[in-house]
Amino acid sequence: MKTLIKNVHVLSMDEQFSEVKDGFVLIEGERITKIGSSSELASLAIRGDKEIDGKNGLLIPGLINTHTHAGMVPFRSLGDDVPDRLRRFLFPLEQHMTKELVRASSDYAIAEMLMSGVTMFCDMYYFEDEVAKSCKEMRIRALVGETIIDMPTCDSPKPSGGYDYCEAFLEKWQNNPLVTPIIAPHAPNTNNLEMLEKIVVLSEKYNAPITMHVSEMTYELADIQEKYNQTPIELLQTLGYFEREFILAHCILTSENDLNIIAESKGKARVAHCIGANTKSAKGVAPIKQMLEKNIVVGLGTDGPSSGNTLDLFSQMRLFANTHKTYNHDRALFPAKEIVRLATMGGAKTLGLADQIGSIEIGKKADLTLIETESVNMFPIFDPYSAIVYSANASNVDSVWVNGRQLVSEKKMVEQELQEIKATLYHEMENFVIEAKKLY
Amino acid sequence: MKTLIKNVHVLSMDEQFSEVKDGFVLIEGERITKIGSSSELASLAIRGDKEIDGKNGLLIPGLINTHTHAGMVPFRSLGDDVPDRLRRFLFPLEQHMTKELVRASSDYAIAEMLMSGVTMFCDMYYFEDEVAKSCKEMRIRALVGETIIDMPTCDSPKPSGGYDYCEAFLEKWQNNPLVTPIIAPHAPNTNNLEMLEKIVVLSEKYNAPITMHVSEMTYELADIQEKYNQTPIELLQTLGYFEREFILAHCILTSENDLNIIAESKGKARVAHCIGANTKSAKGVAPIKQMLEKNIVVGLGTDGPSSGNTLDLFSQMRLFANTHKTYNHDRALFPAKEIVRLATMGGAKTLGLADQIGSIEIGKKADLTLIETESVNMFPIFDPYSAIVYSANASNVDSVWVNGRQLVSEKKMVEQELQEIKATLYHEMENFVIEAKKLY
Ligand SMILES: [Zn+2]
Ligand SMILES: [Zn+2]
Repeated sequence: MKTLIKNVHVLSMDEQFSEVKDGFVLIEGERITKIGSSSELASLAIRGDKEIDGKNGLLIPGLINTHTHAGMVPFRSLGDDVPDRLRRFLFPLEQHMTKELVRASSDYAIAEMLMSGVTMFCDMYYFEDEVAKSCKEMRIRALVGETIIDMPTCDSPKPSGGYDYCEAFLEKWQNNPLVTPIIAPHAPNTNNLEMLEKIVVLSEKYNAPITMHVSEMTYELADIQEKYNQTPIELLQTLGYFEREFILAHCILTSENDLNIIAESKGKARVAHCIGANTKSAKGVAPIKQMLEKNIVVGLGTDGPSSGNTLDLFSQMRLFANTHKTYNHDRALFPAKEIVRLATMGGAKTLGLADQIGSIEIGKKADLTLIETESVNMFPIFDPYSAIVYSANASNVDSVWVNGRQLVSEKKMVEQELQEIKATLYHEMENFVIEAKKLY
Repeated sequence: MKTLIKNVHVLSMDEQFSEVKDGFVLIEGERITKIGSSSELASLAIRGDKEIDGKNGLLIPGLINTHTHAGMVPFRSLGDDVPDRLRRFLFPLEQHMTKELVRASSDYAIAEMLMSGVTMFCDMYYFEDEVAKSCKEMRIRALVGETIIDMPTCDSPKPSGGYDYCEAFLEKWQNNPLVTPIIAPHAPNTNNLEMLEKIVVLSEKYNAPITMHVSEMTYELADIQEKYNQTPIELLQTLGYFEREFILAHCILTSENDLNIIAESKGKARVAHCIGANTKSAKGVAPIKQMLEKNIVVGLGTDGPSSGNTLDLFSQMRLFANTHKTYNHDRALFPAKEIVRLATMGGAKTLGLADQIGSIEIGKKADLTLIETESVNMFPIFDPYSAIVYSANASNVDSVWVNGRQLVSEKKMVEQELQEIKATLYHEMENFVIEAKKLY
C-alpha cells in the first residue's frame, strides 16, 4: 500500500529544520519512503494507491503527548479551580471507576487526541489493560503504564495492588508493535520505600521504562524531605531510577542538583512537561530553559483531562510560549520552531522512540499530522511555525496517519464514529455522574 | 422580526450569574424580550418568525474584545519572537499600508472575530474611516479610534496628522447605531505634550472616549520619567485624561499610585487587558487581581493579529486563567465563571455599554454567542464556565447575533463569503508581502 500526500508544506522537524514548501511525502507500508518537491513529483511520475491533496496545508510529524491519563475523561470540568482537588475530588471519585468506564474513556481520549494531531501518547492510570486494548483497536502508538500507589484503588482492593497488575500487564503486552507496557508508580511520596525499590527491580526484569509524577507538589517535597532528608529526585537516584529509562512528569520544584542528576543520566531520564496543568493549578513553572541548557530531554504533555482539560498539544504550545517567555523576561526565547520541535522530536526522545518517529525523514515510521490552512485563523502565514504555535488550534487538524495508516481524514475519524464512542462513554458514566454530584 | 433560540443552556452573566439549564431566549427586533425554560416555552406557546435549535449548546452574551487593530491582519506571523518588533517590523511596514489594505484587513478581522463569538470590539489604527465602514457593512458593534502619533504615518504625511483625520472622523460617524468614533493617541511617549493636551480638548468637544496604549513598554516608562519625572498614568492624570471616558490598553507596568489614580476615576477609566500579547512579548503580567480589588473595571482584549495572533477571546480566557493563577500562586483565584464575566460584562463596562450589552437580560440588545457542545473537546460538562475557559476554542462557536441580527450560523458567516473576503485581502497584500520579505 502506497499513500502519496501531495501539495503540502513539509516541516520535517529534522536536525536542520529542513522544509519543502511545495512538496510531497510518499508512505509505503508503515514507513516514509520519499520526500520531495511537487516539481520532482511530476518528473518522477510517482503514484500512490491512495493520493491525498494536502491543499497547501502544513505536514508535520505527529504530535506526541508525553503525559496523560486517558481514563480520566469523566473528570473533565469537574471541580476546576478548587484547592487540593486531588484529595477532594479525584481520589474519592476514583473509587467509582470501573474497567468498562476506563475503556470507554480511553476510546474517547484517543479519538480526541488523534483528531487534534497526536499520534503517540504516554499514559498512566488504572485498568491500563483496557487502555492498551483501546490503543490497539484504535491503532494509536502509546506507552501504557499501570499506576502503583500505596492505597486501595479501583482496580485492586489492597494497597500497592497495582504492582501485581503491572507485572501481569508487562507479560501480556510484550512485543506489541504499537503498545509498549511500562511501569507507573504514582509519585515518590505515595509509595513506600520497599515498593519504590521493587519497582526498579521489576523494570530491570522486563526492561520496561518507568514513568512517575515527580517534584510536582509542595507537600510531596515536604514529605520526602521529612522522611529521607532528600529531594524526590535525590531519593529516586539513590534507588537506581536514573539508571532506568525514566520519564519524569512535571519536575516543577527542582533544584540545581536535581537538574544535574537528570542531566547526568545522559538521556535515560527525560522530562514530560505539562505547562497547562501546572499553571492552571498554580503549581509553578518548571525550569525548562535551564533543563535544555543542560541537554536534558524534554517533551510536552497535556496531563489528564481533569488537569489540563484538553488533550491537544496546540493549547500546550501556546501556553508554553507565552509562559516561558514571560517567566524568563525574554520574548526571543523559545522561537516558535523550537516549540514545535519540543512537541514532536522532543516527545519522541522523551518516549524513547527518536530513531523511529518524531521527524519526517526517509525510513522513519509514518506518523504524520496535516494541518489545514484554510480556516480563518490561519492566514496569512509568513512563518509556518508561528502559525502552528500562535494561530492554530486543535480544530485545524485535517488528517492524521499513525504507522502509515490514515486514522483521521477531513477532521473525522476514519474507522470509528465519534458519536458512538461518546454514546458509550455517556452510558458508562451514569453512576460516576451520580457520585460526582454528591461532592459538590 | 422575532427570533426564538431554543434548547440552550443560558448563561446570563448577570450580577447573580443566573442560568437556565434547558432554556430559550426570544429576540424581538434588536432586543431580548423573553428568557425562560423549555417547559415554560411549551406552555406559553411562544413562536418565532425564525426558530433556532441550540442543540443543548451554551448561550452566552457576545464576547467583547476591548483592544485590537483590525487593520493589522497582514502582519500575522511576521517577525514573531523578534526583539523590538515594533520598530524593526511594524513601524517600517506600516508605511506600506493603504486605505484599501486596511479595509480588506478589517473585513477579514471582523469575520474572524464574529466567527469566534466576538460581537463588539474596540479598535485603533490608521485609515479608521475604512474600519468604521467595514463595521457598518458587516454589522458588528465597535468603538473605532484613529491613531494619533508624532511621526508621519500611512494616512497622513505630517507628524500627528491623525489629529485632523480624527476630528473629521468624529464628525462623520456621530450617532451611528453600531459604530462609535473615538480618539486613539498611540501612547504617552509617542505624542508630544501639546498634542496630548489637544486630545483632551477634542474629547470634550465631541464627548468622545479616548483609548491609548499605556504603561506597556519599559522604554515608555523611562521616556516619561526622564521628560516629566512621572509615570505615564501620573502624567495623563495631570493632563485631565482621567476625567474623560478613557480605555487604557495594557497597564502592565503600574505602581500602586497608578492603580489608585485609575480607581479614583470611578469607572471613567478602564483597563483593556491583553494577556496573550503581553506574555508573548514577555512584557509582563498586569496586576489584574489588585485592579479588581480596587474595583477598577477590566475587560479582555486580543491586541492586534501581529501581537496576539488570534482575535478570539477563548485563547485569552485560557491564558488569563493559567497566567494569573500561577502569577498569584493561587489555583482558586479567578474561577472560570469570573473569567467568562471579564470577557462579557467586563468588556461591556470597559467599552461603556454595560446598560446595553454584556449580559443576557430582558431589554438588553441581543448580542449573543452560541457555543456548541457536540465537538470532541466539549464533553463532559459538569461546569459550563470551565468548559468555556478550559476546553473550548474559537472553533466551537456555532452562531452569533449582533443587535438582534444573526451574523454567524453553523460556523459560517451568514451574509458574506469568507473565501471572497480572503481573496480580496490576498490581492491587496501583494505589495505588502514584497516589502515584508525584504525585512527578513
Ligand atoms: Zn498526571
Ligand atoms: Zn495595541
